[in-house]
Amino acid sequence: MTDFDYDLFVIGGGSGGVRAGRLAGSLGKKVAVAEEYRFGGTCVIRGCVPKKLFVYASQFPEHFEDSVGFGWQVGETSFDWKRLVAAKDREISRLEGIYRRNLENAGVEVLGTRAELVDAHTIRLVTTGQTVTAEKIVIATGGSANPHAALPGHELCITSNEAFDLPELPRSILIAGGGYIAVEFANIFHGLGVDTTLIYRGKEILSRFDRDMRQGLHRAMEEKGIRIICTDIIEEVRKAPAGGLVARTLEGQALAVDTVMLALGRDPNTQGLGLEAAGVEVNEKGAIIVDEYSRTNVPHIYALGDVTDRVQLTPVAIHEAMCFIETEFKNNPTKPDHELIATAVFSQPEIGTVGLSEEEACRRYPEIEVYRAEFRPMKATLSGRAEKMIMKLVVDAASRKVVGAHVLGHDAGEMAQLLGITLKAGCTKDDFDRTMAVHPTAAEELVTMYQPSYRIRKGERV
Amino acid sequence: MTDFDYDLFVIGGGSGGVRAGRLAGSLGKKVAVAEEYRFGGTCVIRGCVPKKLFVYASQFPEHFEDSVGFGWQVGETSFDWKRLVAAKDREISRLEGIYRRNLENAGVEVLGTRAELVDAHTIRLVTTGQTVTAEKIVIATGGSANPHAALPGHELCITSNEAFDLPELPRSILIAGGGYIAVEFANIFHGLGVDTTLIYRGKEILSRFDRDMRQGLHRAMEEKGIRIICTDIIEEVRKAPAGGLVARTLEGQALAVDTVMLALGRDPNTQGLGLEAAGVEVNEKGAIIVDEYSRTNVPHIYALGDVTDRVQLTPVAIHEAMCFIETEFKNNPTKPDHELIATAVFSQPEIGTVGLSEEEACRRYPEIEVYRAEFRPMKATLSGRAEKMIMKLVVDAASRKVVGAHVLGHDAGEMAQLLGITLKAGCTKDDFDRTMAVHPTAAEELVTMYQPSYRIRKGERV
Repeated sequence: MTDFDYDLFVIGGGSGGVRAGRLAGSLGKKVAVAEEYRFGGTCVIRGCVPKKLFVYASQFPEHFEDSVGFGWQVGETSFDWKRLVAAKDREISRLEGIYRRNLENAGVEVLGTRAELVDAHTIRLVTTGQTVTAEKIVIATGGSANPHAALPGHELCITSNEAFDLPELPRSILIAGGGYIAVEFANIFHGLGVDTTLIYRGKEILSRFDRDMRQGLHRAMEEKGIRIICTDIIEEVRKAPAGGLVARTLEGQALAVDTVMLALGRDPNTQGLGLEAAGVEVNEKGAIIVDEYSRTNVPHIYALGDVTDRVQLTPVAIHEAMCFIETEFKNNPTKPDHELIATAVFSQPEIGTVGLSEEEACRRYPEIEVYRAEFRPMKATLSGRAEKMIMKLVVDAASRKVVGAHVLGHDAGEMAQLLGITLKAGCTKDDFDRTMAVHPTAAEELVTMYQPSYRIRKGERV
Repeated sequence: MTDFDYDLFVIGGGSGGVRAGRLAGSLGKKVAVAEEYRFGGTCVIRGCVPKKLFVYASQFPEHFEDSVGFGWQVGETSFDWKRLVAAKDREISRLEGIYRRNLENAGVEVLGTRAELVDAHTIRLVTTGQTVTAEKIVIATGGSANPHAALPGHELCITSNEAFDLPELPRSILIAGGGYIAVEFANIFHGLGVDTTLIYRGKEILSRFDRDMRQGLHRAMEEKGIRIICTDIIEEVRKAPAGGLVARTLEGQALAVDTVMLALGRDPNTQGLGLEAAGVEVNEKGAIIVDEYSRTNVPHIYALGDVTDRVQLTPVAIHEAMCFIETEFKNNPTKPDHELIATAVFSQPEIGTVGLSEEEACRRYPEIEVYRAEFRPMKATLSGRAEKMIMKLVVDAASRKVVGAHVLGHDAGEMAQLLGITLKAGCTKDDFDRTMAVHPTAAEELVTMYQPSYRIRKGERV
């Protein structure tokens, strides 16, 4: 028994914090998890989960349209935004309850309060003013949308936080940003019938993705009717006299819209946390600096998830939490593994990706083979929808290992998950080749691209 | 140059025959492919392709219903069977054209005629009566639905052939069989609004699949409203006086339906082919007997695909064709690899599977671990649909290899394709475990089942 109130105190009830708290609790440790808002974190409350539910909602107009080519006739359809928001809220509350119960069932004390560090072992519970002590501390306070305070009129704009709970569905929206959040919301709002424009300062959206993915998605979004403005930024947002907003851009455009959404990056939630008092160091972005084990410069204080600004993904935070438990409570020092993380962009079409883009692979390997297929999915033959799937494997010519796999189209996220296993296991192109196709699927293209589309040797396409 | 009219003569323009012909043609060989009906074979003309198109068509009512939970309202919907059949026919004709053009572009002579063997090197073209000779012959005539001629009233019934082109959509259908064709059509017709009953002599549908898959699907089909009668068979089908049919069963039921469909296995198409004249041996089922290279007892005559009754799947026939080409025309003897073939059943919910069922794995390994998850897919939380996904990994405890992977639910076929690579490459459960989840997907369950649900040691659950 220690002299502390708790063996472990976790600040933040998101994916990383809850997993750390729950596992420590189930090992018999005395644990508290403090959360100032709602349990579940960004993922459950205003990220992955409501986002994916909105993606589903926004896909129905395509189902309605597609049905016609298959012999169906659909009467007039209408959409009630408030009903979607309410349904989403019920689901989130249900999930929040599960998170909370899982903690309680593991014997964890659940504290509905903001918690701040007073010193390296002392935490102040803001709601009551009480202070408690803990032998080990985990900081998992996550991140939040950058409000872009330097932009004149930013206070008139929304971020993804508000997007999930708008009182009315806007008729038009301008979304600033070229990352996955901007792109996903552009597709959601467009699907729900909102006149949608995306504005991004860079040359191409999703700049760190494989070129075929970002160009294929860009094209598909424009073909659907989403307007994309690249190499431009919003300089000012003002209320328009007749209602709505006007966004003036650097290139001199004046865009009149109902709503402007800023999706310009996320900041770690470290302000006012008492990190200085506890002696915990942060970097220039305010992110907590951690070592390979997620340990801060104060050895008994760890930081997990988005607050460390390593890889901002739910499964990564959970993985870091599990590694922390192994390291600190199971005598099994375990470093989180941030290599070869498969991810999905729930745009429409979806992107699923793991490993290196063609561009990165070229830099890393003297010779690569690229296997690429672009085709119309079977469903589109009858629906008549102009859509293309793109599938791409990037192979290190010397080792034959598949070092990158990229899919644009339906179910790309599901595919990326399983392609992730093959890359993690070091599968070669020959392993792909000797796998029998499953017909008719889209994924069968991934095992039937027998000849490289092209090779790149020392940066030159040959 | 040989003394024969052709280097290669292929009888049958399905998946296997066309691939063999096309590849040989592109190697500069003098090749003909004869097809008595339409190019594309069962897969394109009356199998995989139209089946999957009908599956898509039959899913729209679920989309319409699901949309309500996401805030949509859909006016009255109606379905026009004739419009679906016509759209399907256009797509099949388009694909048939592609098959034909691919052959022609490879310099292959395309013969629209039945072809029969006269002797081991001579083929008679039935349409013209002409005979031609070939150095090598490939028989790829496929299979066809067993008409079940012993059943009184079988002539009143349809098979899958006719199901694709019924002049009217029946109000009710009785489907006999428990294999994947019976199951897929039961789901298609049910989805299109037909009152559907399945009758199967065995205890459980899809008897060779993993128990969780067949029981999960059985339950899901019944919950949707498909009636499933097991351990019973149709003894007689008669016209009912008031129209429609009555099927009397062994257990004494009298089932009144518009249409009875028999899906009771498929027979190899070897009748009247002249096999005896050529000296080619068949087995007791009429299937052509081949060795590991697909070679018949006559060394220069090969047989590929369903006519050999090995594995009746399109990709397998294509694979056998490619191996034949390697063996005979590229001096690279290659045996088709029939191990670890991933497959899908396009039922609703779908099944995707590769490797051993739990039952088979128990027999083969002294100890197995079973990892099993059953959960409600995210979309169903808002749609309110009562559906469960089941995912299951079967692991050899000694080697840690994943020896079976089974998925029931949306996109199971796509998942099976990629799981197929992991099993083919010999991936272990540890490879799965160290793969980061892609969130939110369904497939992430496959990499986050860290603890076995149970173990089976020497046949005993422990």
